Amino acid sequence: MTHSPQRTDVVPSIADRQQAMVSETPRVPEITVEDLRWLDTGAGILGTGGGGDPRLGRLRLQSLLTNDSYPDAVELISPADLAPDATVVSVGGMGAPTISKEKFPKGDEDLNSLRAVERAADVTVDAIIPGEIGGANSMAPLCVAAMADLPVVDGDGMGRAFPELQMDTFFIYGQQANYAALTDERGNQVVYQNIDTPKRLEDLARSVTIDMGGRSGYAFPVMDGTFVSEYCIADTVSLARELGRRVHQARRGDTLPVETVCTLLNAQSLFTGKIVDVFRRNRDGFAKGEIELAALEGNDTLTIEFQNEFLIAQTGDDEIRLTVPDLICIVDKDTAEPISTGSLRYGQRVTVLGVPAPELLTTDAALEVIGPGAFGYDTPYVPLYSDPR
Amino acid sequence: MTHSPQRTDVVPSIADRQQAMVSETPRVPEITVEDLRWLDTGAGILGTGGGGDPRLGRLRLQSLLTNDSYPDAVELISPADLAPDATVVSVGGMGAPTISKEKFPKGDEDLNSLRAVERAADVTVDAIIPGEIGGANSMAPLCVAAMADLPVVDGDGMGRAFPELQMDTFFIYGQQANYAALTDERGNQVVYQNIDTPKRLEDLARSVTIDMGGRSGYAFPVMDGTFVSEYCIADTVSLARELGRRVHQARRGDTLPVETVCTLLNAQSLFTGKIVDVFRRNRDGFAKGEIELAALEGNDTLTIEFQNEFLIAQTGDDEIRLTVPDLICIVDKDTAEPISTGSLRYGQRVTVLGVPAPELLTTDAALEVIGPGAFGYDTPYVPLYSDPR
Repeated sequence: MTHSPQRTDVVPSIADRQQAMVSETPRVPEITVEDLRWLDTGAGILGTGGGGDPRLGRLRLQSLLTNDSYPDAVELISPADLAPDATVVSVGGMGAPTISKEKFPKGDEDLNSLRAVERAADVTVDAIIPGEIGGANSMAPLCVAAMADLPVVDGDGMGRAFPELQMDTFFIYGQQANYAALTDERGNQVVYQNIDTPKRLEDLARSVTIDMGGRSGYAFPVMDGTFVSEYCIADTVSLARELGRRVHQARRGDTLPVETVCTLLNAQSLFTGKIVDVFRRNRDGFAKGEIELAALEGNDTLTIEFQNEFLIAQTGDDEIRLTVPDLICIVDKDTAEPISTGSLRYGQRVTVLGVPAPELLTTDAALEVIGPGAFGYDTPYVPLYSDPR
Repeated sequence: MTHSPQRTDVVPSIADRQQAMVSETPRVPEITVEDLRWLDTGAGILGTGGGGDPRLGRLRLQSLLTNDSYPDAVELISPADLAPDATVVSVGGMGAPTISKEKFPKGDEDLNSLRAVERAADVTVDAIIPGEIGGANSMAPLCVAAMADLPVVDGDGMGRAFPELQMDTFFIYGQQANYAALTDERGNQVVYQNIDTPKRLEDLARSVTIDMGGRSGYAFPVMDGTFVSEYCIADTVSLARELGRRVHQARRGDTLPVETVCTLLNAQSLFTGKIVDVFRRNRDGFAKGEIELAALEGNDTLTIEFQNEFLIAQTGDDEIRLTVPDLICIVDKDTAEPISTGSLRYGQRVTVLGVPAPELLTTDAALEVIGPGAFGYDTPYVPLYSDPR
């Protein structure tokens, strides 16, 4: 493989881009039932092929928000507005996304884990934050928030989806694996304390999740407001919702949905073509594989490798076009409907989008944990925009 | 395999035997440093080949009892003397015994787990009980007791050693897997709550122990004095000590050590011979295998299969001579020094002893969990003494 970053004449800085994104994203400080299909689509795109299908969580959240026993909306709190000593914990589902489709969660696993962490750490949680905005774990924290009547921080720890827990910005930037809990649908509960590294927590939690049948509800770690406001990827719940809203709006209008995605996310269309080969295998607890795309006209091809998420895109003449942590998103070329690694099929007409990673994911510290090398690729990070800082 | 229980003309009842054992076992209500080499030998014999080498724990206990910061002796409390509402927890080491010999425990793992269970269950422990008297877990509870200045119940949950945690009498007779904790030498701690079955706790704890490098210090479950006094195998700490004392005494006198073992345990010598074949493999986290013995004179042979512990003994003409839960103990034919499955060697001259299992291990409920079928053998329990009840 050769390393050949794509260059463009006009490279917007990440700061400019983030400023643009925030100003373009309406701040509506709550999530209501009307937002759910937008959030579903937006979180699906940001999942970069992984993170699990948000659909099931969306249905669960819909039933909660329309149930008189629960609030009508979940409050979103901006990271900047968190009290410095606020107690913030991340919740969601751990395990193979495919399993959740067959072995339905009972619904109280994540909340039970949150309560277990509160007891173990002797704290009361003030706000919940999604660990990852991409995929199913966008919805899970909102469900817990509805049940526990807690606000959700408008941000997350990945700005996308990643397969392992140590890959969130909290752990990358020094958060201790102080407390964690997993619960299964029978109420079996495992609490972790004083774990020496996030990677060890990942290992210990992964094997318990497998023992729990491949899916558990998690809560971890216990963070304070100052830390979260500094190290979360900000505004991503709003961003996912706005992304979905614009895609749905474009589908009914004259703009190509893919173009509206590019505008909002400062993304580029890397390739449009047909899936001509799908090679998939389950190895080491991950959905690994690669797909080959052929241009609809001409002879260009693109190969994309994945491990749960799409990780690396390479042209037919072996030029690496884009790598993790930048987002490689595959969407239907006409509707911009996100296509996960699990639903890739021969013959699909798709557009491959490259989305620049948030700045917190591209530091040297971050690249050690979520760069190509962390996934076994012997290549440096090839960003969408060179020298983005 | 054919089922042909050994019959003897005079069959002492278990009640008689236990009465005899208790009256023969001096009640000295503490363990001092002088007791340790006796306890080591006795616990080794009762380990039926498994349970791990008591030696390392003995050295640790010796250093504690001779250290001015700790008491000189550990108080032994008879199960019958436990207050009905006393809080009793079992502690010890989990994992492959072979690993403890290379990856030494730090020493505070078991105590840290005990403290974690106290915090999770919001209780203060009044006494510690060994989960199994056979092997290394005879010493571990005494070490914790010395460090925490707590008494140890003179009894255990197996009366021998078994490879899995659901195989103790507490879980067999209905104890819930209410609270449990594992800690490794770095202080990494995993707490289990509300686990639905003891077998699930075994599964969840086994995989975490493997992640912890193959050895963890455990504490579980939280029991009350009434339950423990009813369902523990009573007086086994004293028994192990007395067994070792008599063996050491016999070695210096005129009685054959093996005979003194038979007298105290109501045991029988099943076979004396030479080990002529050892087949050993590590499979599914267990040390599995079989050995073949040939008589020193004549053509008789005996085959013994093991999974950590010796489980089934079969004569050369395929008659099953003895099965789990009765104890199959292999000792040096001259010194009665116990030989574990890990130290079996070609050419060793050994005596195979059959020891009747305590009554609590031979009920229908118990045989479901610790009978031959639980270890994959398609044969009923073949006891040393037929119709022992």
